Amino acid sequence: MSELKCSLLRENLQKAIPAVSRLVSAKSALPVLQNILLRTENGRLKLAATDLEMGITYLVGAKIDRNGDITVPSKILTEFISQNTDDKLEFEVVDDSLKISSEKYQANLRGIDAKEFPLIPELKSAELFNLEASALREAISQVVFSAAQDESRPVLSGVLFKIKDATLKMVATDSYRLAEKTIELPNKVKGEVSLIVPSRALLELARILGPIEGKVAIASSENQILFSVADEVQLISRLIEGQFPAYEQIIPKESETRAVFATNDLAAGVRVASIFARESANNVKLSLLPEAGVLNISATTLQVGENTSKISGEITGKENEISFNCKFVLDVLAVIKDEKVALEIAGKLSPGVIKPVDKKDYVYIIMPLRA
Amino acid sequence: MSELKCSLLRENLQKAIPAVSRLVSAKSALPVLQNILLRTENGRLKLAATDLEMGITYLVGAKIDRNGDITVPSKILTEFISQNTDDKLEFEVVDDSLKISSEKYQANLRGIDAKEFPLIPELKSAELFNLEASALREAISQVVFSAAQDESRPVLSGVLFKIKDATLKMVATDSYRLAEKTIELPNKVKGEVSLIVPSRALLELARILGPIEGKVAIASSENQILFSVADEVQLISRLIEGQFPAYEQIIPKESETRAVFATNDLAAGVRVASIFARESANNVKLSLLPEAGVLNISATTLQVGENTSKISGEITGKENEISFNCKFVLDVLAVIKDEKVALEIAGKLSPGVIKPVDKKDYVYIIMPLRA
Repeated sequence: MSELKCSLLRENLQKAIPAVSRLVSAKSALPVLQNILLRTENGRLKLAATDLEMGITYLVGAKIDRNGDITVPSKILTEFISQNTDDKLEFEVVDDSLKISSEKYQANLRGIDAKEFPLIPELKSAELFNLEASALREAISQVVFSAAQDESRPVLSGVLFKIKDATLKMVATDSYRLAEKTIELPNKVKGEVSLIVPSRALLELARILGPIEGKVAIASSENQILFSVADEVQLISRLIEGQFPAYEQIIPKESETRAVFATNDLAAGVRVASIFARESANNVKLSLLPEAGVLNISATTLQVGENTSKISGEITGKENEISFNCKFVLDVLAVIKDEKVALEIAGKLSPGVIKPVDKKDYVYIIMPLRA
Repeated sequence: MSELKCSLLRENLQKAIPAVSRLVSAKSALPVLQNILLRTENGRLKLAATDLEMGITYLVGAKIDRNGDITVPSKILTEFISQNTDDKLEFEVVDDSLKISSEKYQANLRGIDAKEFPLIPELKSAELFNLEASALREAISQVVFSAAQDESRPVLSGVLFKIKDATLKMVATDSYRLAEKTIELPNKVKGEVSLIVPSRALLELARILGPIEGKVAIASSENQILFSVADEVQLISRLIEGQFPAYEQIIPKESETRAVFATNDLAAGVRVASIFARESANNVKLSLLPEAGVLNISATTLQVGENTSKISGEITGKENEISFNCKFVLDVLAVIKDEKVALEIAGKLSPGVIKPVDKKDYVYIIMPLRA
């Protein structure tokens, strides 16, 4: 029998803890799920947490004196480490507690035996493809907000990963709007693979990827997906079962009116209109005037008043008018980092298209509202 | 009959609106109290709001075309002005609405007749004294948090302003701790004046003073106090009636142990202990060891574990031990800007004293807890 004992740098731990601790719910009925698992593994200290839907493990460099493991409450560990001002920490399991010592601070955290911690499944499949962390992070931010917030149609609460040859398409839709991102992969994938990944897993992944540079390797089995980041972090999630809707047909092929705006100008105009649209279900009316080169965005609420924002742009095609939920427009303008954005309209009742002007890797569709 | 018409710079308005709008409650039963009053006054535009306990008026430079007034919903005016990106705005009352026009935006806000707006009382008394805005702001921040949060003893929910000769003392206590700030005034005041000012009015005043440099003039009548800031802003508040407790006697005259710490070190140590004290009513034990020159701060919670923080300092007098509510210690360390702080103890059961080392203008008393 041996009990965990190791020493490590607080700064290393401080990167790992926030990444895993977000999976821990203080309200979990099972006390051990309120805890983080600490376990020595191949000369490093592994931190792990799971909410039974997904699991995250993080390997931290450490000087291991004795192998062993324990689970300790996530909340108090997180706070203690983040408030601690010392550089070097010693961890030692004594009886059922984790003793943490450093120059100025000493704490005993009561733990729960690691045997009670649920097994985080391991995925042994070969890598399907890999991506730059920054590219994956950007792609997630550009599609995930379009997934359905509720679970009434489970497939819509996730993001479709559709891989064919060397092309990955990531797609999300809540049936009111749809976002599609296309990424060229470094390698061809055999056959055609379709996976639906829960939005929550992708949001956690994007947070973890935040400061990381390097490659993310993706592997999958029939019902799970694994993201491995730079030999340090692994996120494993169940996949959503079911068939993603055949969405390609709703992407308009042609338009009557095309307008190009500075992304910031359009966002500012819609944002002002949104103030006045709040009591009318976020309904804003867009009037495209090609001759004047002007888009008028207007919103009216009987109780508070009305507003018109005037945006200059290059508008070609015929005069047109369409109503959108302004929130859906603001959502996409927040994630398009390009300076210029195109809006394409094919009449009052057809879906509108928003996309960056100079790139073909992203397209966003919004269903119109009745005026 | 004439209706308000004026033009003004958005940046001027953007300073004024947040200052007045915080008094407006969206939930107010009286609709006109959800509004801000706009009125031309001596060639400027006056903005005013009141919650019937206090009132704030803000004068903004404007080019007045027609005198007049109106009240408009605070929330939508605030949002519209803060999202607006144009520099120059035109205001015009048309029928019952305020029309706001600028280069890119136009809005109509439905208003309520200014006649329905409650009269904000004016105070004609002569100035009692004046102070630098920055000094008053700092003094407020150092005492107001010690006032009682509830109104069970109304006098404790305010801050005592006690003026005698050329000395102002500002004092607040919730009966568990007490803060006293002493300020030397530029002029002598006749007789002795005691006023109890509601904490909320002082918190609003501190916010308004935030970016302002210049003098604040203070005047009072029997039941009101007026703060006039730099000929632009006025805050008027009712005073709290009643007798403030005779607090001088509880400020300890002598101590058994005196310790001097770096303010940041002491705050860090208490902050770590506070994590472990949360489930034991914030109780932390301070052990002062003069020979070792060490303060041990410890907290224990059966459920989560225990902690000791070790702080080095210069400790003179006898070995001593005392328990405090750690929140009360953190509160004061957050507002003492000096590098070093003194802690003075006169035994387990006597109030402890915390104060800056090199200044005599501030003192903070904490009642001990039973260990």
